[in-house]
Amino acid sequence: MLSKNKIKLLRSLDQKKYRSESALFVAEGEKLVFDLLNSAIEISGLYCTPNLVNEVFRRLPDMKVEIVTKEELSKISFLKTTPEIIAVCTIPKSEIDWDEITGSLSVFLDEIQDPGNLGTIVRVADWFGIKNLICSEGCADLYNPKVIQSTMGAFARVKVHYVELNEFLGQAHTRNIPIYGTYLEGENLYKCDLTPTGIIVMGNEGNGISAGAARFISTRITIPSFPPNAVTSESLNVSIATSVICAEFRRQFICRG
Amino acid sequence: MLSKNKIKLLRSLDQKKYRSESALFVAEGEKLVFDLLNSAIEISGLYCTPNLVNEVFRRLPDMKVEIVTKEELSKISFLKTTPEIIAVCTIPKSEIDWDEITGSLSVFLDEIQDPGNLGTIVRVADWFGIKNLICSEGCADLYNPKVIQSTMGAFARVKVHYVELNEFLGQAHTRNIPIYGTYLEGENLYKCDLTPTGIIVMGNEGNGISAGAARFISTRITIPSFPPNAVTSESLNVSIATSVICAEFRRQFICRG
Repeated sequence: MLSKNKIKLLRSLDQKKYRSESALFVAEGEKLVFDLLNSAIEISGLYCTPNLVNEVFRRLPDMKVEIVTKEELSKISFLKTTPEIIAVCTIPKSEIDWDEITGSLSVFLDEIQDPGNLGTIVRVADWFGIKNLICSEGCADLYNPKVIQSTMGAFARVKVHYVELNEFLGQAHTRNIPIYGTYLEGENLYKCDLTPTGIIVMGNEGNGISAGAARFISTRITIPSFPPNAVTSESLNVSIATSVICAEFRRQFICRG
Repeated sequence: MLSKNKIKLLRSLDQKKYRSESALFVAEGEKLVFDLLNSAIEISGLYCTPNLVNEVFRRLPDMKVEIVTKEELSKISFLKTTPEIIAVCTIPKSEIDWDEITGSLSVFLDEIQDPGNLGTIVRVADWFGIKNLICSEGCADLYNPKVIQSTMGAFARVKVHYVELNEFLGQAHTRNIPIYGTYLEGENLYKCDLTPTGIIVMGNEGNGISAGAARFISTRITIPSFPPNAVTSESLNVSIATSVICAEFRRQFICRG
């Protein structure tokens, strides 16, 4: 049985303020929660209907789980259709591992505002083996329940950090890490010798890459439209652009290897 | 001054039934409408506030425009923020030009349900010079006001057709047009010799490519995740996958050329 106080706490987790205070976030639904049970994400509370209890015990005999009715679950669910299981998880501590950043390919998001774009980019990062997704402080919040659901579990495999832009990119620059920036006018992506390691900076939906980030960028790249010089859309959506660019970094890496 | 009947007619255009009956759809906002004024899209009615009248006349001196108050516009707008201008346009007649389909690269959508995905794919098609986007009858409707707005004008440069799947793909097959299907298991996209012309079939968000479409597919392709064989997301969003695939078709074409 869920106490009124607990319901109130869990309901508050759709607000960033309360997520930050409690360091908690919510993940819902069988598929997503069972994925998390096998991940490094720490579960601080697990609530499920009697339907799923056996399945949870079968998978993780030591997991503490609170059995509740569907009606109770509906009080803490943020989804339109109440799921059979909800996990309350601890927001992982963000620690920048500079050795890993230096030795791999990362994506840096400069003020990405749309939660849908953030969720999609986390899935893209997961697909293309991007271990670290670094967000400037003004980016949408990964731990918003809608974003978490939209990542379809990818967030458990990608380290997402929120950082002060100047400090992070300044350090990266000092360490001679190649920093690529995506622009409407830049070097044709396919004519660039893309390094297997480095940081790809993607800019805000409306304004592109900020002046603050631009000064650290060593190579400006662009996704050429086709045919060259045709009248076309003014830009690609930022999650679309991120996917095309990550795909090309990986293609070149594999083709070289 | 907008009559009650006219307001009623225009308000009904958020429903597919009424769009089909009237063959009309709505496009809103300065940027989008001014783009359309220079396109092949036929405008059947144009409504704007006094603020924009001079600009409309400057661009198109012969255009008939009805001057209305912002309050009146708010009665026919589907946007949260009422724009200064709204165009009512004629849904273009869809005519399949088989010579063009045979001689260029097209995308076929097999039951794409999400309006957001459709809007994004229209922009992607525009960016990569895909002239024909062919939708199976069950796809989301392009002329839904939300989809039209999300394409940001790209819909005026891409011909979007709704067809009976068997008839269209059957004809394409008979004409020996290469038909690519995107699967989770298929030939590595980067190891395929992608033809400069053909049809790329993208499947439904949940179920992938239908059995009906599958039997016409000549080459199954896949976007490899990285590193190979790592645990990753189960799939990429369909608009993301479309963009990575179209980008690679164009890259190979240009690199060959």
